[in-house]
Amino acid sequence: MGIIVKKFGGSSVANVDRIKAVAKIIANTKDQGHQCVVVVSAMGDHTDELLDLAHQISANPSSRELDMLLTTGEQVSISLLAMTLQEMGHRAISLTGWQAGIETEDVHGKARITNINTERIFKELDHDQVVIVAGFQGVFANQEITTLGRGGSDTSAVALAAALHADICEIYTDVEGVYTTDPRAVKNAKKLDEVSYDEMLELANLGAVVLHPRSVENAKHHGVKLVVRSSFVDTPGTEIKEEKSMENVHVVTGVAYDMDVTRIQVVDLENKIDALADLFTTLANESINVDMIVTSDYEKDRINVSFSISDQDIHATLKVLERKFGEQAKVSHDHHLAKVSIVGAGMISNPGVAAKMFKILSDAGITIHMVTTSEIKVSCLVPKIQAKEAVQALHDAFELGKE
Amino acid sequence: MGIIVKKFGGSSVANVDRIKAVAKIIANTKDQGHQCVVVVSAMGDHTDELLDLAHQISANPSSRELDMLLTTGEQVSISLLAMTLQEMGHRAISLTGWQAGIETEDVHGKARITNINTERIFKELDHDQVVIVAGFQGVFANQEITTLGRGGSDTSAVALAAALHADICEIYTDVEGVYTTDPRAVKNAKKLDEVSYDEMLELANLGAVVLHPRSVENAKHHGVKLVVRSSFVDTPGTEIKEEKSMENVHVVTGVAYDMDVTRIQVVDLENKIDALADLFTTLANESINVDMIVTSDYEKDRINVSFSISDQDIHATLKVLERKFGEQAKVSHDHHLAKVSIVGAGMISNPGVAAKMFKILSDAGITIHMVTTSEIKVSCLVPKIQAKEAVQALHDAFELGKE
Repeated sequence: MGIIVKKFGGSSVANVDRIKAVAKIIANTKDQGHQCVVVVSAMGDHTDELLDLAHQISANPSSRELDMLLTTGEQVSISLLAMTLQEMGHRAISLTGWQAGIETEDVHGKARITNINTERIFKELDHDQVVIVAGFQGVFANQEITTLGRGGSDTSAVALAAALHADICEIYTDVEGVYTTDPRAVKNAKKLDEVSYDEMLELANLGAVVLHPRSVENAKHHGVKLVVRSSFVDTPGTEIKEEKSMENVHVVTGVAYDMDVTRIQVVDLENKIDALADLFTTLANESINVDMIVTSDYEKDRINVSFSISDQDIHATLKVLERKFGEQAKVSHDHHLAKVSIVGAGMISNPGVAAKMFKILSDAGITIHMVTTSEIKVSCLVPKIQAKEAVQALHDAFELGKE
Repeated sequence: MGIIVKKFGGSSVANVDRIKAVAKIIANTKDQGHQCVVVVSAMGDHTDELLDLAHQISANPSSRELDMLLTTGEQVSISLLAMTLQEMGHRAISLTGWQAGIETEDVHGKARITNINTERIFKELDHDQVVIVAGFQGVFANQEITTLGRGGSDTSAVALAAALHADICEIYTDVEGVYTTDPRAVKNAKKLDEVSYDEMLELANLGAVVLHPRSVENAKHHGVKLVVRSSFVDTPGTEIKEEKSMENVHVVTGVAYDMDVTRIQVVDLENKIDALADLFTTLANESINVDMIVTSDYEKDRINVSFSISDQDIHATLKVLERKFGEQAKVSHDHHLAKVSIVGAGMISNPGVAAKMFKILSDAGITIHMVTTSEIKVSCLVPKIQAKEAVQALHDAFELGKE
């Protein structure tokens, strides 16, 4: 019997009753003879409540102090879950990120895990403890508390599963698995039994919001077997694995959308050979994630660049661009757009899928403002107010709701 | 200009507006050129809310997990205070107990500070930071989060002032200083300009609830100059210093009371030579604080022992005694009592003060159940329902309300 890592999100531990339900799930696995390492997020809306407190003080609180504040959320939930398991007669111990040896970069707000020192966790497992680790957090140089960014508990779970050589990493959530599209937006969205890492990666990146993309990347890289399942009902969930081990490969597996998109346009930039490298390196140095990128050179010494970022990075991005270019380029931003994408591992061998997507959208009277493609996805920026309409049209036209 | 340590209790940082007021007090001191180290407690009732969550899960949550839970309270308030000072344009950094180098014993719930590794704090002060330290918490062996017990933020502040060789340690609270008795219980209670460490120690031990006794002990031991003052109004407060530097020495300086008293009686204990040492060592090993002790040997091979403890230790105490003695002694407890005390550095040279106290209480129809005395105090256990009446009678008879 090996190690099982289980991750429970905020809605799964939203109150004391939910925590007791989660403790029962863990106790069942423990009773079957497995060693359990459990990663939990903050309770329900707790993180948002803490953010709200911070924003009563400052529109732009320092990310170091924000990490100090937000990491208390998980510290509360791990201690309560440990108490609950103890009350049920099980051995359990909670560990913060630094206690669990989760080491990260020296970045606040969105640090990456650089190493996990597993000594303490293995010691506790040897003492027959259920080890409950605070998700979303780590430590830099044994001294500074860092966070992995929102949704970072998934990343914690997968990184722990890899470091501990766990048999499986189960991501418990408030939905029953991965769907062909967001079931809140489209009624006949269908649960998938299995998806490939690559499909999941695109789905997660594209707003299917079930799994954090970094966690899927890491799972793929380390060959960690992932299962997304419900903490509310006992159903099998969706397995995420290598494409070659899957029974069916669909041309289009799912439709994803992302409302959290701001398009930045930089017009009349001087066309030096390193202009793009320079621009995006500057943004990367500020830890700003850029998603879609489109460029055009309409005069030989000037170029235009459009790219998309997360809404939360608008302020930082505009500040960086202002400092960098001042009067040398015109910068504008538009946050009335959303990204709609189709994803499917079989797309690579089926030409014309992108064309079909554009046709479906134009038939629905939806203007496409930007396009990017990869082997297994096509993404379009469309007006935010038409995004859900676009998702429904694509889901219907590609017949994803059918058995 | 030297280092000033300031400590703000929960009511001083109960909400964002209060935190802003506290930040202004700190900024004023900083603007005068001092280096500031600030210790804060959890916001308002936050600790009680966390305790309530724990008690929804277990009547007796493990003290290790309780420490994990409760220490989040101060971590929230330090980060918010740091953000507030930063928003006002000041350099500020928050540090948890472990980051601030506050090392403790390996005990949960009521650890003592064993050492403060001041390296990090001095480094931050050198960078012109206001250093904001989470009170009430520390770390054992760089690994386990511990707490100093309720009221422990005072202890943190004094220990820091001693370790940093601060000029002064200012304890900000919701009252204007130390009073002749509790102003909530007695209308004409008078604020004292100065009291001696010893008087304060007795007053604090005896329920005057302004300062935690351990902090006064430490301040006396290390010669830290303490000031108790209000975070709401800008008045001088009460200085706590060596008796020899005080202008006036009163026979009776104040009247204190403590409602948090449980009397334990152990009857028919076998009178071995090490019986008392054995009993109280066992209690000490469980970190149970015993206050008053009275013994009598009514037969030569049997003794009775009465002692008082804090209400919160009833469960632990009865468990220890049950395990220790089983059928060999009769154990009973009574939590309907309160302790009323008179304190004064001048008492030592004035005979008959205890006799006067007993007369005042008996004239008021109040039965005395237990008495202990020291050089500068006399304490009596009286019925809890008559405690405030006793305080008023003593305060009047010793003329403490007069100018």
